[in-house]
This record gives sequence, structure tokens and C-alpha cells, in this order.
Amino acid sequence: MMPQKVRIALDAMGGDIGPAVVIPGAARFLDQRPDVTFELFGDQAQVGPLLDQFPRLKAASRLTHTAVWVKMGDKPSQALRQGRRVSSMWLALDAVKKGDADVAVSAGNTGALMAMSKFCLRTMAQIDRPAIAGVWPTLRGQSIVLDVGASIGADAGHYVDLSVMGAAMASVILGVEKPTVGLLNVGVEEIKGIEEVKAAGRLLRELDSPALSYHGFVEGDDIGKGVVDVVVTEGFTGNIALKTAEGTARQLATILREAMSSSLMAKIGYLFARSAFATLREKMDPRRVNGGVFLGLDGIVIKSHGGADAIGFCGAIETGYQMVRHELLHRIRDALAHAQEARLGAASAPVAEPSATETH
Amino acid sequence: MMPQKVRIALDAMGGDIGPAVVIPGAARFLDQRPDVTFELFGDQAQVGPLLDQFPRLKAASRLTHTAVWVKMGDKPSQALRQGRRVSSMWLALDAVKKGDADVAVSAGNTGALMAMSKFCLRTMAQIDRPAIAGVWPTLRGQSIVLDVGASIGADAGHYVDLSVMGAAMASVILGVEKPTVGLLNVGVEEIKGIEEVKAAGRLLRELDSPALSYHGFVEGDDIGKGVVDVVVTEGFTGNIALKTAEGTARQLATILREAMSSSLMAKIGYLFARSAFATLREKMDPRRVNGGVFLGLDGIVIKSHGGADAIGFCGAIETGYQMVRHELLHRIRDALAHAQEARLGAASAPVAEPSATETH
Repeated sequence: MMPQKVRIALDAMGGDIGPAVVIPGAARFLDQRPDVTFELFGDQAQVGPLLDQFPRLKAASRLTHTAVWVKMGDKPSQALRQGRRVSSMWLALDAVKKGDADVAVSAGNTGALMAMSKFCLRTMAQIDRPAIAGVWPTLRGQSIVLDVGASIGADAGHYVDLSVMGAAMASVILGVEKPTVGLLNVGVEEIKGIEEVKAAGRLLRELDSPALSYHGFVEGDDIGKGVVDVVVTEGFTGNIALKTAEGTARQLATILREAMSSSLMAKIGYLFARSAFATLREKMDPRRVNGGVFLGLDGIVIKSHGGADAIGFCGAIETGYQMVRHELLHRIRDALAHAQEARLGAASAPVAEPSATETH
Repeated sequence: MMPQKVRIALDAMGGDIGPAVVIPGAARFLDQRPDVTFELFGDQAQVGPLLDQFPRLKAASRLTHTAVWVKMGDKPSQALRQGRRVSSMWLALDAVKKGDADVAVSAGNTGALMAMSKFCLRTMAQIDRPAIAGVWPTLRGQSIVLDVGASIGADAGHYVDLSVMGAAMASVILGVEKPTVGLLNVGVEEIKGIEEVKAAGRLLRELDSPALSYHGFVEGDDIGKGVVDVVVTEGFTGNIALKTAEGTARQLATILREAMSSSLMAKIGYLFARSAFATLREKMDPRRVNGGVFLGLDGIVIKSHGGADAIGFCGAIETGYQMVRHELLHRIRDALAHAQEARLGAASAPVAEPSATETH
């Protein structure tokens, strides 16, 4: 049963700034979507006064005081040791675990949040290792890319799990019933890519899932083109691809800024084209797509960028809100169950001809 | 002994266009650097008439006819089967092997060129698997990134080989005596990255090579910042990082172009800022840094982008020219010999304390 209001647990102390971003971000979100309540966890002395500035938010929130919070530089083991059961991050996750909230949002450090999420919420029955999925702006709109850093390496089965979970998330974010899924691979060698990726391609082709449409292999430059709705890779490559793209975008923005202030003529041109540049800036604004989704856990957890401002944090809450409203966990469980049945069916079926090599 | 003129072997048939790009590209190069001669391999009927248009180039070249060439879509095994000893690609490589040329340049397909290079030139004695190194434009200038797709996966020793070879190339391209080297890794998890990368980090720290300065781990967004001169990773991740960056750059260029033609005001602004946009375009021009260098072979091979035009192909020749003039192979052999001695020394030395975990 979907509760009438979406109940959102916030780690009020997470992020580079902390409450001064989280509270205004939540207030902003409430202005857009009044059908939510907040469970806030953080230091009363810091959060209380901020909350007083936003009476509507205050009325829709319950603040639970804790004097313990995870620092951005804390190692996951340290965070667990010092912050288990008592930190604002843990308490936000625990609210989801206990059923007091539908989703937890934190801008705290990724490693600690993932470690605590695994410890507190546990993974879904069928899933060994959780993943982090990001929303990637493309020329055709948006795509989901996962895993962008939760766990390193993958066997064929894990790639299938990632595909199924990513497709469920894409169906929510993109509103597509049967998202297309591509496995990230390299196209240089004849025997393309690593064995596990090839094996995963065969499994996905055989899967015939109602929840996703397997496209085949995609390469790095296909992500930005928006060739598929969901790009699947393991956490090492995914993290490097994501950060490389972010780095390239920042690099080009810097070059553009320098070029536009390099001469009087350029500056005049900039003034004329100001609104075009504003559009451009908006399209390139990383805040638009803030909010990594932790997938594979028994609960919904959203990781906001640590450096996000209130607008960015509001975006992360929106991502969480959508996941709850569109029942992400049910979608994932259904799709995983189907995939598992299909695999069991395939295992008991007579041995088929080996499928042809992928030739995307 | 360095020959007075650099002797360049060209696969005249390689690339999406073939001779109509290769020959004008070579002519353009000769205008810039007269201290070269060319060994051309290709179809007399196609190459001959083009050569007649460039009398200076014709005078500096010898054309060897062959009616066989590798197609862009050929698989490496197919290329080897049909093109060994007879194709324009093979003959260009063989000219290097036989000592008739100092470097081979081809815009033919990467997989075939790598397979033929391994087969024809063989790897250096100390190297198991060759790599492809690319020049990556950064905010601080240029960096060398390798391996961008030659071979997948790496053990610690291979990462060290890549570091040594990449540093040798960087010393040529960047003119830095002791280039800084970073291992590409992820920063999300406490136990950062894969075991092999961590082990390579320890080896590189102990190496104390006169030819490179080990910086530590770098992340994807550090590449564009130009944090290190040489970024080292294995071919799967490197290929995906490279193509993801290319895709992001193209994506942003498209968005910029659309923004600048979105309104009359924007178009007027564009006219005023025209020269700034020209600078921008030039900085983003992939032709500026065309030419992947195959490292680890007993000979210098340059892979031009298949879609390069004459200017781009000329850039690839320039890369090869620099590698010859600055004796890339000697630099690599010297550095590899030093690294091997250091490793042997370390192996016979008393067992040291395990080095501290990388905490870049």
C-alpha cells in the first residue's frame, strides 16, 4: 500500500555544507510537492534555527536530535564504528528500515553511506552486491548508467542483475515501459571485451524480459548520444567513465568561458547571446540530475552530490520521491523474479546451440 | 645512428577515405618538414594519379604497388589471413621491420593494424602485450593516456610496463625529462580500486626510476585537469574513458551549436564572438592530437583516426616523426632495463615491510 504522503528521511548533517544546504533544499522541495513529510536527523543546535526560517517545512517535519554525524573524509569502517545506530546518516537509513520513512536521502560521503546502507537495510534476497545508478544527460534526453562505483568487477549474473535494476529505475525516471539496455564494451578487438560481458550479453538475449529490451554492446561515446536508456557496466569502469565525462564537461566549460572573455568583441558577442548561454548553462547544470540511486537494497537510498547546493539537494529529493511514487522496489523485485525464473527455466531446458558471437 | 632523413612508411590505402586523404596529408607534412622521405604502399591506379598532383611529395617518395588492402570492417584474423605479406598495411609495417623505414603510419582499422603489428614487428623482449597510447588535451596542455584499447586487463607488472612506456612517450611529446605518472583508479571505496592497481602503485613507488615520477592514483576527472603527464590504465577502462570523453565533447559541441542558432540575438552574438569561437573550435579540434602510438613493439607504429582528413593524417605523421627524432624506442628500452634491474634488485633484497596503503 502506498502511503498518501511520501515520507522522506533526511540526513540533515550530510554534505560539504550540511544543514545550511539540506534544510533550504527540503523547503524548496516542499514548495514544489506538498504531498510529503520529512523525518530529519541532525544536530538540534544547527538544524533547529534553520528550520525556524521555514515554517511550512517545520510543520511537515519531525526532527530527531543526534550529536553524531559522519564526516566527508571518514572511511566507511570508521563511519560504521563511530556512527552505527547513532549518526544522522544511520538514523535516516534506519527510519526506512523500520518503516517510518519511504526513502532516505543523504549528501554524506558515498563510501560511508553505501557501507551503512548495506549494514542497515541489507541487500535484496536475490542480490549479492548493491550498485549506484546515476542519471546521465544525453543528446536525446537522459539515460541511466550503472554501476558508477559501488562494487568493482562483475560476473555475468551480476551484469544481468544490474540490467534488470537499471531498467526498473529507467522505467520510473524516463517513463518508458520497456527501456533499452546496453552493455558497455570496447569495440577495438575482434574478440570484443571481457568474457563476463560477453556471457552477460548472451544471458540478456535469452532473458526475453517484459521489463527491458536488450540492445547489445555500446561503446563509451554511445552514452552521450543516448543510444540506449540504460548503460550497464561494473563499478570500476562506470566510476571512471562518469568522472571522465564530468571532467571533460568542466574542461570545455572552462575553455568556453576563457574564449568568451578573450576579447572585447567576444564579450559583446556574449552579451548578445546571453540567453543562449543561459540555456546552455542550464543544460549543462549538473544539479539538474543530482541524486545517485542505490539499487539492490531492501529500501530506497538516494545519494546527493556532497557539493550540491539547495537546488541540487532538492533535485536529489525529487529523485527519491519519484522512486517511491512509482514503486521502484516492486518493479525491481518483479523483474528480478522473472529473470530468475527465466534462468532456472533455461537451466532445466535441453542444452541449446551456443548463441552467435555478439557483433554489435 | 639516426638517419639524416626520417623515413616514413605509409599505408596509402588505410582509413575511411584512403589515398585521397593519405597523399594530401603526406604532401602537407612534407611542406612543414622537408627532412623526410616516404615509402608508400598502395594501389598504383589510385595512388599514382594523386601523387602526380604533388610533385614535391612524388620526388620524396617511393611507391610500391599492391592490389590488396585491409578494409575498415575486416576482422583482425581476416586481415591477417588475406593481407599478410601482401596488403598495403603489412608492407608498411614490414618496411619498418626490414629497416627500410623508421616508422609506419596507417589510418586502417585498429584491430587489424595491432594484430599485424604484433605479427610482423613482434613485441620488445621485455613486453608481453603492446599498448595504444593517445594524446589527451587537458586544461594544462596535453597528457598521455594508455592503454586506450590494445589489451584488456593487466597485472601489476603490466601496469609498470605501461607506466615506463607512457613516460618515455611523454618525454618526447611534452618535452619533460621526468614525466609524472598516475594510475587511474576509483576513489569511492575504502579499499580503493582493484588489487592489481594497488600492487602496481607499490611497485612504482619502489621503482625510483630516473625516467618517471610516480604521482599516485588519479580519478577520471583528473585526466582533463592535467593532474599528471601520463595516465595509466588497462585497455578496457582506457578505451571506455577515451570514447566517453570524446562523446561528451561532441555532445557539448552539439548543444553549443544549437544554442548559438536558437535565436536572432544568439546569432548576432555568435557573429561578434566569431574569432573566440574559432579559437574554441581549434582547441577542441580532435585533429590537433591525432595519432595513437603503439607501444611495446620492436618498431614505431602510428594509428591515425580512420575518419581523419588530410590535416588530421598530417598530424599523425608528425606524431610518428617526433617519436623517431627523439628515439622513442631507445628511451623505452633504457627505462625498461632500469625497471627490470630495480625489480630484480628488490627481489634479491631482504624482505621489506609491506608499504603503506595508497592514500592518494
